[in-house]
Amino acid sequence: MLAEFDVIRRYFTLPSDDACRQGVALGVGDDAALLAPQAGQQLVVSVDTSVADVHFPSDAPADAIGHRALAVALSDLAAMGARSRWCVMALTLDQAWFADDQAAHAWLADYAQGFSALAKQHATALVGGDVTAGGLSIGVTVMGEVPVGEALTRRGARPGDIIAVTGALGGGAGGLTLWQQGKRDRKHPLLARYLWPTPRLAAGEALREWATSAIDISDGLLADLGHLRDASGVGASLNMEALPLSEGLADAMGQDAARQAALTGGDDYELLVTLPVAHVEPARQRLAALGVALTVIGECSDTPGVHGLPVQRYQGWQHFKGETP
Amino acid sequence: MLAEFDVIRRYFTLPSDDACRQGVALGVGDDAALLAPQAGQQLVVSVDTSVADVHFPSDAPADAIGHRALAVALSDLAAMGARSRWCVMALTLDQAWFADDQAAHAWLADYAQGFSALAKQHATALVGGDVTAGGLSIGVTVMGEVPVGEALTRRGARPGDIIAVTGALGGGAGGLTLWQQGKRDRKHPLLARYLWPTPRLAAGEALREWATSAIDISDGLLADLGHLRDASGVGASLNMEALPLSEGLADAMGQDAARQAALTGGDDYELLVTLPVAHVEPARQRLAALGVALTVIGECSDTPGVHGLPVQRYQGWQHFKGETP
Repeated sequence: MLAEFDVIRRYFTLPSDDACRQGVALGVGDDAALLAPQAGQQLVVSVDTSVADVHFPSDAPADAIGHRALAVALSDLAAMGARSRWCVMALTLDQAWFADDQAAHAWLADYAQGFSALAKQHATALVGGDVTAGGLSIGVTVMGEVPVGEALTRRGARPGDIIAVTGALGGGAGGLTLWQQGKRDRKHPLLARYLWPTPRLAAGEALREWATSAIDISDGLLADLGHLRDASGVGASLNMEALPLSEGLADAMGQDAARQAALTGGDDYELLVTLPVAHVEPARQRLAALGVALTVIGECSDTPGVHGLPVQRYQGWQHFKGETP
Repeated sequence: MLAEFDVIRRYFTLPSDDACRQGVALGVGDDAALLAPQAGQQLVVSVDTSVADVHFPSDAPADAIGHRALAVALSDLAAMGARSRWCVMALTLDQAWFADDQAAHAWLADYAQGFSALAKQHATALVGGDVTAGGLSIGVTVMGEVPVGEALTRRGARPGDIIAVTGALGGGAGGLTLWQQGKRDRKHPLLARYLWPTPRLAAGEALREWATSAIDISDGLLADLGHLRDASGVGASLNMEALPLSEGLADAMGQDAARQAALTGGDDYELLVTLPVAHVEPARQRLAALGVALTVIGECSDTPGVHGLPVQRYQGWQHFKGETP
């Protein structure tokens, strides 16, 4: 039988000399963690829940599930321009697994590997966890830091600001479609995009200098642009031709469906930002140095709504379509 | 149909003049919250998941479910001697509810009332949330502060230290038993103990001055004393006659079962602390001023194990006994 203490100790305890442990006075193993925030910084906190067969297919590779659960949470820190520092994880495991030691341990080892590798990559220490039995579900709370007053928010876009996105769009939706068609090639660029999304933390930090507002694209470009427009009180016109499509997307789905995936598909975890015209080129160069593309896709206006869209009415993204409404 | 944004905005947005908002530069509504930790303080973080029919009966009153989910998390801050400041909540709602607006809104209103009332009582701002569909489950991450180096931990107990508990024990287990027998009187002291546990935050802060170690009693006195003994490397002898039993417990269950509930029942959320002999009386007086009893129940020793127990072998607590192992 799996015991909570075993799970945390066995799979999630960092070596004491790990670089992730900076700022961790006391990690996993007591009633709570003790952390040392840095002077002059604001604490940036976000929580995300990933539910099996709602947000990801329950038969996805366990390492991808671990990676994704952390990645979607980190993506919110990226959207604030924050540096990630710590996280806590509430892992609810399928009750049936508690009866099958071997399968559970194999799954957990893979899950922990996926989670921990991404955490390490972003110098993020797992400082607390709670393991329970129920339906498979993962709640991750991430904590980062940003210099006081410098965070990017959804407010701040002004008419005339340029709208740009990092990376490429539609790959999350494209990968999910392939998965649902039974494709299991981990190396397929679309499946990789869906299963192992990349939170744009370094890009988010760099964009603090140039952007007027930011949001991460988790529900789809149009939906998240809507949140940003609401918060900033601006309209937007988009250039459909300019949307950067994920590698292999048009080949897999055709041009029209690819563009629709880029507009309304979710799970891309790219950053959507606004910035003054004069900042576009320096921001683009700075991100290029980080290996991240920045593509202009439109402009903010003082006309409410979104212009430049094809006639079709687009719906928001529902992540993995299981039983969810 | 319930929408995530509606749920958060409608039920969980604090008025902007609320005292809870201290240290909140940006709360619910962006990609992440921006918080202002205080200089000279460590950040204290813990996460707890409450799963329906594992940690609480799914037909418990919704306000109790909200209260309990936050209370069990706050109890961990209390055990560190921390002051609670902020929390984020990952609320997974039963998928069926998303189809029944009226029932869902009635439940949510009660749930939010229970959660928010306790949050307000402890000046704790809800600064982020994620609402998803799945099996009913609540993950709460709490964040508090404690002056650097002053947190209580599970380490630090020394042979000769006195072992004491706040409040009374066994009421969590007693209340659960009554609930399972079909009793629904919210005012019954045992049901109240189980459904609306009190996190001992003020007592925890006060005990920083006197205690050498602390843990909260969530899994049962013996199990949690075991964690504390392991961490501190001490043995313990208990005085069974001294265990403070919850009001009405012996009447409801008989003396023997009451004592067993106090030893091994969980869900009490009292603090178990160790302190030097000379600190017992001042600590007791200090807590009395806060309306919280402090009862000596034993002593730490350098003999491994626990002495003074009746012959029977006690098992750890499994919270609500649903399908869980």
